[in-house]
Amino acid sequence: MIILGVDPGLTRCGVGVIEAGEGRRLSFIHVDVIRSDPHASQDLRLLAIYDGLVAKMDRFVPDAVSIERVFAQENRNTVLGTAQAAGLAMLAAAQRGIPVALHTPTEAKMAITGNGTAQKIQVERMVMRILRLNAMPTPPDAADALAQAICHALRPAGALQGGEREEHLTEAQRQWALAEQRRRGRRRINGDRGM
Amino acid sequence: MIILGVDPGLTRCGVGVIEAGEGRRLSFIHVDVIRSDPHASQDLRLLAIYDGLVAKMDRFVPDAVSIERVFAQENRNTVLGTAQAAGLAMLAAAQRGIPVALHTPTEAKMAITGNGTAQKIQVERMVMRILRLNAMPTPPDAADALAQAICHALRPAGALQGGEREEHLTEAQRQWALAEQRRRGRRRINGDRGM
Repeated sequence: MIILGVDPGLTRCGVGVIEAGEGRRLSFIHVDVIRSDPHASQDLRLLAIYDGLVAKMDRFVPDAVSIERVFAQENRNTVLGTAQAAGLAMLAAAQRGIPVALHTPTEAKMAITGNGTAQKIQVERMVMRILRLNAMPTPPDAADALAQAICHALRPAGALQGGEREEHLTEAQRQWALAEQRRRGRRRINGDRGM
Repeated sequence: MIILGVDPGLTRCGVGVIEAGEGRRLSFIHVDVIRSDPHASQDLRLLAIYDGLVAKMDRFVPDAVSIERVFAQENRNTVLGTAQAAGLAMLAAAQRGIPVALHTPTEAKMAITGNGTAQKIQVERMVMRILRLNAMPTPPDAADALAQAICHALRPAGALQGGEREEHLTEAQRQWALAEQRRRGRRRINGDRGM
């Protein structure tokens, strides 16, 4: 199973790709940072990030895309651009029928180090260890994107994150799952005829 | 000149289309609200909004897209979804080479009523008057999208908004304008050789 992790950003958008094999053995595949020109207009910047994400998804054809969840209370200067970059990653995945998962930075740190408040250096060391790397792949600040991918691979089985859909479904099964999701959303306990 | 205004939102995204003729005579063309299912996952909701915006842009082929500027200090529960919807509108426009303008709600109210703190009903009445309508087009809550489009048509000549590019340029001219924009962004006052 190929997992593509995204550390969203408008100026620098980290992408990390890993493979989760049998027994949750994880292997490093790729890491990169997609950049946009801070002096370009916002629409062209978003287009650059989107095109970069699309190129990665079409190159590595991931089975899941794991994106860092953005919170409104974060740094006000950049939070909207970060949210927009995360939105573009979700759009690109949805256009390709790739399931999307959102994990908070705390969830990623917890999954990787066992400590939700771990320091960046601790996370980086564990990322190296888990992926059996001799050094952090460059660019080093894409470690968060790899951490997102690892977090998704190591998440408790059956744990469905917000935005995540059931994986490996036929179109008919997906439609059914979507209807089921709606039904649950409406908090109904009747049968399908109640919809 | 066809202007497509967007009142961004993840649950309801307003779209208003007007034509600005000679002497700034404005005519109503279209108004609608693109919806996404609040019970669907966020990636599918973003895809629905994006597909809806793309359909409108491809149907009306606007010369400019005017989007309400989103601020981080707004309602925390919805601001990220609103910012993401605005980002999708910018992306769809950039993919089609359509210039993008961002106007704040205050700018729109000021342009339409002369009062940046006008009430919603005052804005709606002026939208009807400017577009020579006998009633507010339905759905009524898309008035903000029409107001965005009107604001862009009535903006002071030569006023370049953030995210807006010069209109009606050849590709070479556009590249030059972009380089010029970068140069200005770097706050240089030297000639082109200074870049």
